[in-house]
Amino acid sequence: MTKILIVGGVAGGASAAARARRLSEDAEIIMFERGEFVSFANCGLPYHIGGDITDRSKLLLQTPDSFLARFNVDVRVMNEVVAIDRQSKSVTVRNLLDGSEYTESYDFLLLSPGAGPVVPPIAGIDNPLTHSLRNIPDMDRIIQSIQMNKVEHATVVGGGFIGLEMMEAFHQLGIKTTLIEMADQVMTPVDREMAGFAHAEIRAKGIDLRLGVALESVEFVPTEHIASVEAGESDAHQHLQGELNLSLNNGEKITTDILIMAIGVRPETKLAQEAGLQIGELGGIYTNESMQTSDPYIYAVGDAVEEKDFVTGSQTLVPLAGPANRQGRMAADNMLGRTESYQGTQGTAICKIFDLAVASTGKNEKQLKREGIDFEKVYVHTASHASYYPGAEIVSFKMLFDPKTGKIFGAQAVGKDGVDKRIDVMAVAQRAGMTVEQLQHLELTYAPPYGSAKDVINQAAFVANNIIKGDATPIHFDEIDNLHDGQVLLDVRNPGELENVGYLEGAINIPVDQLRQRMDELPKDKEIVIYCQVGLRGNVAYRQLVNNGFKSRNLIGGYRTYLFAKQ
Amino acid sequence: MTKILIVGGVAGGASAAARARRLSEDAEIIMFERGEFVSFANCGLPYHIGGDITDRSKLLLQTPDSFLARFNVDVRVMNEVVAIDRQSKSVTVRNLLDGSEYTESYDFLLLSPGAGPVVPPIAGIDNPLTHSLRNIPDMDRIIQSIQMNKVEHATVVGGGFIGLEMMEAFHQLGIKTTLIEMADQVMTPVDREMAGFAHAEIRAKGIDLRLGVALESVEFVPTEHIASVEAGESDAHQHLQGELNLSLNNGEKITTDILIMAIGVRPETKLAQEAGLQIGELGGIYTNESMQTSDPYIYAVGDAVEEKDFVTGSQTLVPLAGPANRQGRMAADNMLGRTESYQGTQGTAICKIFDLAVASTGKNEKQLKREGIDFEKVYVHTASHASYYPGAEIVSFKMLFDPKTGKIFGAQAVGKDGVDKRIDVMAVAQRAGMTVEQLQHLELTYAPPYGSAKDVINQAAFVANNIIKGDATPIHFDEIDNLHDGQVLLDVRNPGELENVGYLEGAINIPVDQLRQRMDELPKDKEIVIYCQVGLRGNVAYRQLVNNGFKSRNLIGGYRTYLFAKQ
Repeated sequence: MTKILIVGGVAGGASAAARARRLSEDAEIIMFERGEFVSFANCGLPYHIGGDITDRSKLLLQTPDSFLARFNVDVRVMNEVVAIDRQSKSVTVRNLLDGSEYTESYDFLLLSPGAGPVVPPIAGIDNPLTHSLRNIPDMDRIIQSIQMNKVEHATVVGGGFIGLEMMEAFHQLGIKTTLIEMADQVMTPVDREMAGFAHAEIRAKGIDLRLGVALESVEFVPTEHIASVEAGESDAHQHLQGELNLSLNNGEKITTDILIMAIGVRPETKLAQEAGLQIGELGGIYTNESMQTSDPYIYAVGDAVEEKDFVTGSQTLVPLAGPANRQGRMAADNMLGRTESYQGTQGTAICKIFDLAVASTGKNEKQLKREGIDFEKVYVHTASHASYYPGAEIVSFKMLFDPKTGKIFGAQAVGKDGVDKRIDVMAVAQRAGMTVEQLQHLELTYAPPYGSAKDVINQAAFVANNIIKGDATPIHFDEIDNLHDGQVLLDVRNPGELENVGYLEGAINIPVDQLRQRMDELPKDKEIVIYCQVGLRGNVAYRQLVNNGFKSRNLIGGYRTYLFAKQ
Repeated sequence: MTKILIVGGVAGGASAAARARRLSEDAEIIMFERGEFVSFANCGLPYHIGGDITDRSKLLLQTPDSFLARFNVDVRVMNEVVAIDRQSKSVTVRNLLDGSEYTESYDFLLLSPGAGPVVPPIAGIDNPLTHSLRNIPDMDRIIQSIQMNKVEHATVVGGGFIGLEMMEAFHQLGIKTTLIEMADQVMTPVDREMAGFAHAEIRAKGIDLRLGVALESVEFVPTEHIASVEAGESDAHQHLQGELNLSLNNGEKITTDILIMAIGVRPETKLAQEAGLQIGELGGIYTNESMQTSDPYIYAVGDAVEEKDFVTGSQTLVPLAGPANRQGRMAADNMLGRTESYQGTQGTAICKIFDLAVASTGKNEKQLKREGIDFEKVYVHTASHASYYPGAEIVSFKMLFDPKTGKIFGAQAVGKDGVDKRIDVMAVAQRAGMTVEQLQHLELTYAPPYGSAKDVINQAAFVANNIIKGDATPIHFDEIDNLHDGQVLLDVRNPGELENVGYLEGAINIPVDQLRQRMDELPKDKEIVIYCQVGLRGNVAYRQLVNNGFKSRNLIGGYRTYLFAKQ
């Protein structure tokens, strides 16, 4: 009989427990959770605060009782594993209700402690109106704060998943909201120019978005008496009211009624570290492909671990639910004698930002540059389904690839429809080792309500292959502001478009359909830098010009890419 | 200078013309189209009839003038190529406006004539109220018929894409509609049991769906004078009114105001055949991987050709827009000196049927059986995104695979949300040569509004791998009505579910969460055939039973698969 102890009862831990029981009816399985809840929907928390998910109980996917009934798992909530004795293969557990401690032996131990919110040491940050959001009690506290402090203005620090979702939750509650992000963009999995679409959407919804600034200090100004525990008062049910004066590093001040700190998470490694388990360079628990730690009897999964990056093969830290769940299942397999190996994490991610979805898979341009990997990139902006059928929306898509081999490095997409689908397609293609050449041949579902005969992905692949084969010479949005004397800008859109959506200063305007007749207006001794709205007509014009002996480049992704990069 | 002639100006032909010009500025390109329109949105026609696409001009993607201006292509509408002289490399063209004929020489000829509607030789079928739908004039005639005959009842014969879309169009116009299909299911790309979901939806919308019957004869009863051309009257603008009496092969009669024949299409091969080009066994123009016909100077693409089936490698006929467009582009590449090879067609398809999407890729079970290929299959029914987030709908998903190698044969999905995405994922995975083992590791976009931490595809892969590894012993819906004495049916759902959605006669009911305590109610000498609603709890119960020494099978896809197979 195998005895399995599991530390942490949410995504990875709960998946492992259920899988272990399905594999073995006689294994003894004990799951320790220091919190009150197991297997709750942590990704749903912001949506309950914002009101999309009205019923709080829907977030509680399993209870200790349901786990026992269905999987015969002994779930011990409010029980924290505080030490591991690897020699004797046992753990010390503290019962958080009565403070008592006991030991429990194991054959295999699974660590699934997750990651905790990073709260930087900012003066005044420890106050009753400042929260982070990780679990059900955090959520309950935020809801209580909103109600009790009659919040009219909220400030969110951090433009990642949780920060963006909390921003939207506040907005949905009719609360004026400021979002502060230290970087020059939100949603760092995508590159700066793709985040521009998100910035535009966020500002269009009336959010006070401040990029490139940091919170420096917080002053809590209570308007009601605060219970003093030291003085013997109970702080359990005090109705706290007040406001926060925030000081930013650019000298600006903000007065706000609630502050959410969402600058990121840090793997919970204390237990592993104290047990002498190897910690990776990125600060997560080191795991091999079997999800084993440096101790073969101890496995670790989820937000607390470092695993292999699918694209580069180096270690990575990806705190996302999908990998956590699959790793948990796999760890159970391996503890019970199977041989499953984890194939690496691509970091496929998506975030809803009001009406937009912003998604990515694989490596982004920032990462590729950091790692010194040679890449090329394409942008397309094309309809989510046949443009003549109602409801089509533009999918703005970026693809990064190896210009020599065509290997897919990563993809990013932003839009109001069909964004998840395109990134899923890319995530599968990348995992399967397909090249951008092969993407041309993808045969995706097409009927007017769902797609196009040449899908976004096919089109991006066509552009990429044109570049690889030398049929297109790209110029990118970030080169446009630095043209030299030997280059001439040519706008091949119709004059009406220039008026409506803007244009680049100094460009000659010859609509693509007049180009054959008016080619002699262009100098043959200069490089003609062509642009249109999204790059498609630009390519037609480019082919005309080079086939007529001109030197030329086409702005990949067109004016739209250039424009939103500045947002 | 290369001279390229193109026969047919819609999907494949138009794509080829545009690509050819982009590759070569000095090629001479002439595109012949016997109809009035080029490059129109043939997939959009039913949606204009039904009113989704209100503006008819949106269906006209290009005109001869726009083609000339942008691509310098000489587009000759109302010009039909009537003969090919392969010896002299020239074609005879008839100008349909004046009846004159002329010849045109070529270096390369591209045939993209498409496929025409099959109209069977049914008595009385040639009447003014019976239509098929292939092009803009057909669409205009149908709209005219609907208006002039004040259509209150419509009959559609054929439950394929066009038949289903026309059914929906009529329904949307408030017209009572009968759909007649000779087979026992609509939408033959999916298997019978998956079509059951569509049948339920179609009937729920009030459509008179008749399966397994055929139209035998049509009687046209005019209520107004019909112009007689023989008597010298003009039939151009007569306002025809009347009704049709339809006789079916089961003896039933239907009186209807309009009849749409949509039983299928047949490749247009007359021109190719008369020129002595090889015709394939399936009746399409034979093409090799370069999209060349048996004459190396003549290429053919689109609905008229036979190409390679991606899964089996044998010849196939797939009249769909995606392959046509990509083949056209590729043929242009090859005519102009590139070397592109077509990688085969999976037949990825999708159809909107009211609120449902029905989609598939690869081979279905009927085809695998016909070809004698050994396969296994799984069904899952799982939420399109996190079930606690609003708007989640069940995706009913079927996957076919090789039980030995895990090779993906095909996939089918039905549901109100996220169906296109799941079939796209499968289409990519299949094309990339992934196994069902690898599908377990797919890392797809997940946030509550878009997906689940364990996506539909991951879940289906888990089930498939359980079967491959011997961790699950499946029984399928079509075996359930034929259990023998050595088998006992066990329903592991809660009693309330049996009441609400029904159950199988003779099943013992022990809810999964009570099974451990009540296992002794089950016989050890019989095989326990377990079912639940979708197969998930059944698997939990199955694992409990076999790990306790019982013989057992689990109904894959659960009661839901069984139930809808009967629809």
